[in-house]
Amino acid sequence: MTLEKRIIESIRDVPDFPKPGIVFKDITPLLKDVELSADITTALAEYWISKEIDVIIGIESRGFIWGNALAQKMKIPFVPIRKKGKLPAETHAFKYDLEYGSAEVEIHKDALREGQRALIHDDLLATGGTAIAAAELVKISRGVVAGFSFLVELGFLKGLDPLRKYSNDIHSLITY
Amino acid sequence: MTLEKRIIESIRDVPDFPKPGIVFKDITPLLKDVELSADITTALAEYWISKEIDVIIGIESRGFIWGNALAQKMKIPFVPIRKKGKLPAETHAFKYDLEYGSAEVEIHKDALREGQRALIHDDLLATGGTAIAAAELVKISRGVVAGFSFLVELGFLKGLDPLRKYSNDIHSLITY
Repeated sequence: MTLEKRIIESIRDVPDFPKPGIVFKDITPLLKDVELSADITTALAEYWISKEIDVIIGIESRGFIWGNALAQKMKIPFVPIRKKGKLPAETHAFKYDLEYGSAEVEIHKDALREGQRALIHDDLLATGGTAIAAAELVKISRGVVAGFSFLVELGFLKGLDPLRKYSNDIHSLITY
Repeated sequence: MTLEKRIIESIRDVPDFPKPGIVFKDITPLLKDVELSADITTALAEYWISKEIDVIIGIESRGFIWGNALAQKMKIPFVPIRKKGKLPAETHAFKYDLEYGSAEVEIHKDALREGQRALIHDDLLATGGTAIAAAELVKISRGVVAGFSFLVELGFLKGLDPLRKYSNDIHSLITY
C-alpha cells in the first residue's frame, strides 16, 4: 500500500469539531502506528533532504510532533514558533485575523541567523493563516522561507495560494 | 564533556519570566544544537529502552518536541495529552489547581489499551501539577504509569515527591 493510502486510511474524521458542520481530520491515530509514524518522518525528510534547508520551524503545538523528529532526521536545528506569551526570551511577534477575532504568534529574536533558509512545518494546512504568520516571522527575522511542509493539506480551503508569495516549494504528503 | 554539562551550559536562564522573581529555564537553545538535541533523544531512550514501556505520553506542548522523537527512537506509539478542547474525539479530562485558578488536560478515550505501560514525558518538571494530571489520565484510561521522563528537574520545587504515588521510576537528565 502507498504511504498516501496508509495515511488516509489511518486519519480519523471527527464530525462537528471544533464546531457544527466541520469534519476534523484527526492525526492522532497516525502516532499510534509506529511504522507509519516513522515512515511519515522519512517521507518528509526524503522530499527536503536534497534541498537547501538550514532549519526546521515547527508551529505550536502539533507542528512540534513531527517537526523535531524531522529536524533530527535531517540533522538540522529545530526552532519553535509559539503562541503569544510562551517564549521566554526576546521575541518578534505577528498578529493575524481568524474567522472570529485574532491570534498572535512569536519567534525568539535570536532563533534565526540572517539568510538562514527555513522550512516551515505543521501537520495540517487549512486556510493558511498560521503558516503565513510563520512566514512573516521568518522574514522579520531576516531569514529566507525555503518552503512549507505539511502532512495533510485541505485543498478545498485554498490555503496554498497565499503561501506562494513566500515560497513555491510547498509539500504535503496527502491532499483532500 | 558530559551530556549533563552540555545541557546545563546550553540552557538559557531568563529572569522574571513568566513573572517577576522567577528565573525561567529556556530549553530552545538545545534545539539549535543538532548534536546535543540528538544526544538528548538517545540518552532518554537509553534509560528506558530496557524497561517495559508500551507507549510514550507527551504533555502539550513542549512534551511533544522530544516526546515523539523518543517514541520513534524506541519504536513505540506516541500519545498526546492536550489542553482542554484540543483533542477532537471522545476524551477523558482531568482538572487540577494552579497557583492561581485551574487547568484541565485531556486524553483520547481510545489512546491507551487496558494494562498498557505508559511513560509520561515532558521537558521540565517544576511543581509536578501537570505530570500528576497526566498520571491520573493514564489511570482513568486503565493504563499503568510505568515512569516519568524529564529533561530538566527543578529539584528545589519538590515536584518529585507527589509523583512517587504513581511510579518510583522517575528519570531526569539534569536536576537543578
